[in-house]
Amino acid sequence: MSRHHSPQNNATGEQAVLSFNDLLAAFEAQFNDRLFPKNPATLYEAVEYSLSNSGKRIRPILCLMANNLMGPVHLDAFLAANAVELYHNFTLVHDDIMDHAPLRRGQPTIYKKFNTNTAILTGDTLLLYVFEYLNCIQGDYKQAVTATFLEAALAVGEGQQTDLDMEAMPLSAISYTDYLDMITMKTAVLLAASLQIGGMIGGAGEEDQEHLYAFGKNIGTAFQIQDDYLDCFGDQVKFGKQICGDILLNKKTFLLLKTFESATPAQRSHLEELMADNTIYKIAPMVQLYKDCKADQWAIHECQRYQDIALRHLKSISVPEAHKQALLSLTDMLLNRAH
Amino acid sequence: MSRHHSPQNNATGEQAVLSFNDLLAAFEAQFNDRLFPKNPATLYEAVEYSLSNSGKRIRPILCLMANNLMGPVHLDAFLAANAVELYHNFTLVHDDIMDHAPLRRGQPTIYKKFNTNTAILTGDTLLLYVFEYLNCIQGDYKQAVTATFLEAALAVGEGQQTDLDMEAMPLSAISYTDYLDMITMKTAVLLAASLQIGGMIGGAGEEDQEHLYAFGKNIGTAFQIQDDYLDCFGDQVKFGKQICGDILLNKKTFLLLKTFESATPAQRSHLEELMADNTIYKIAPMVQLYKDCKADQWAIHECQRYQDIALRHLKSISVPEAHKQALLSLTDMLLNRAH
Repeated sequence: MSRHHSPQNNATGEQAVLSFNDLLAAFEAQFNDRLFPKNPATLYEAVEYSLSNSGKRIRPILCLMANNLMGPVHLDAFLAANAVELYHNFTLVHDDIMDHAPLRRGQPTIYKKFNTNTAILTGDTLLLYVFEYLNCIQGDYKQAVTATFLEAALAVGEGQQTDLDMEAMPLSAISYTDYLDMITMKTAVLLAASLQIGGMIGGAGEEDQEHLYAFGKNIGTAFQIQDDYLDCFGDQVKFGKQICGDILLNKKTFLLLKTFESATPAQRSHLEELMADNTIYKIAPMVQLYKDCKADQWAIHECQRYQDIALRHLKSISVPEAHKQALLSLTDMLLNRAH
Repeated sequence: MSRHHSPQNNATGEQAVLSFNDLLAAFEAQFNDRLFPKNPATLYEAVEYSLSNSGKRIRPILCLMANNLMGPVHLDAFLAANAVELYHNFTLVHDDIMDHAPLRRGQPTIYKKFNTNTAILTGDTLLLYVFEYLNCIQGDYKQAVTATFLEAALAVGEGQQTDLDMEAMPLSAISYTDYLDMITMKTAVLLAASLQIGGMIGGAGEEDQEHLYAFGKNIGTAFQIQDDYLDCFGDQVKFGKQICGDILLNKKTFLLLKTFESATPAQRSHLEELMADNTIYKIAPMVQLYKDCKADQWAIHECQRYQDIALRHLKSISVPEAHKQALLSLTDMLLNRAH
């Protein structure tokens, strides 16, 4: 929390736009400076563990990039980026309890490695530290930034509850629109808010803030559709996840929802039969059913459609096109993975 | 959040100090104004339920009283009082999961009435709403108030983890000092912070803030010792709890810790034998052991000693004595219950 990244100007005095790797290095350097207490060790060892297995830092980097769109990266943007990253880790710790997930990024989850009670308290502690960072923001936008963050965080919780509700519902009871709303709240809204907050701190006007939010939301939706597609049709080596894990677990995904929606009555019956089977033998016929219902082509098309909407919003932001290069590269990195 | 309680002046133009009942009525009127969303109903019904079974509102009233010590009650003090009350309810929802508590104030707990996942999300949502209120504070003290709140909230979580750790430890491994520290963090620190925050918003100087904090912390410790005493030696009708529930559950209390500390080797063996018995037949001999080790007299003495320290801090606050009447009455109400 102690370092301020001063503007990097090129030879002509114009503002330089920092790359993903520049911002990641700057983010990590100050994020790893955080000092948690040592005691009780049973709590803070779990808190440290929850942050040791770092993810891709997409949300904090989006916040910093949106800030950098508007000018040199401000210290307040780092504080907000830390808050967003801690919040994301908080959701993982509590979601893993709720989803009974034994592993996260290949390591035992907190509730498995420690216990459920410590996992609840670890999440609660991370959530309090989110506000330690937000409370250090100095600019006039502090109240607006905090309000934007809170709105997104409440939506994420609502999305998680809706996801739990939908897991217990039959496919026939879930509309595609409800599913899309749920996924948007659970995942896309935090990306959107991270970008908006970075922009706010950089002095973006209301319209530019709205474009940043919409850019993030559409990128988030495209990413989620792509994620579901890759689990089923991706290259296992490149993608790095078990292929068709979603099918095996009967997970409700865009592909499953779309297939059910498009299916003939006979195909629906077949789909329901396959879902009643808990063996790997259901995978191949389910993939075939997805193809027969053209869910694979739909996913490729929808992913591109959301990406196009996102890029139109990025284009509408009233800063020189050259400043948008980092966000364009990040979009490309996120949305052109392995298909 | 919409009402501002303007100063109530008496005929001579002096500030009137509001009573517990006045402040409680004012608090309830605006606290019940809160508007949660309706959907997802599975989440917000649980959130509403968690607040429907209201407690004694001690923490928010302490915040308002401390504010009223310094002058008319400020709208920001109501915002802080709401935050403190929501935070307290958040801790109950998550603690009840951790403690496997089926009932709270005679009603099923959230995790029992709904389920564990919804209880986790209900707590998380309440904690976010804490910051919705704190973020609406307008005065220059906003950052300091939030920092004071966060320090207390982190201590409460640390106290809860330490409590869980101690539950799993043998009596011989727990020192009286460690137990006192744990209880202070888990319960007294939030009372202390509620008072300090009310004072800060009223413009109290640093010394007065420290006295308010110390007043609350000592009242909290006295209250906890009294609570343990009354569970064992109180009048069941007046106290309204099952007598000796703590003994039946082998709960680590001030009485048990103090008895173990003062006991002869023979008494320690007897105590350990009794703790190995899970029937009601252990209650009478355990109460006798507490008396033999004079833990009952110790508790009365310590409760009075902490109360005296608290009152010395209250006396040191640099406002007219007449303004302190409401806090004195509340102290009396809390600490002279049934013994």
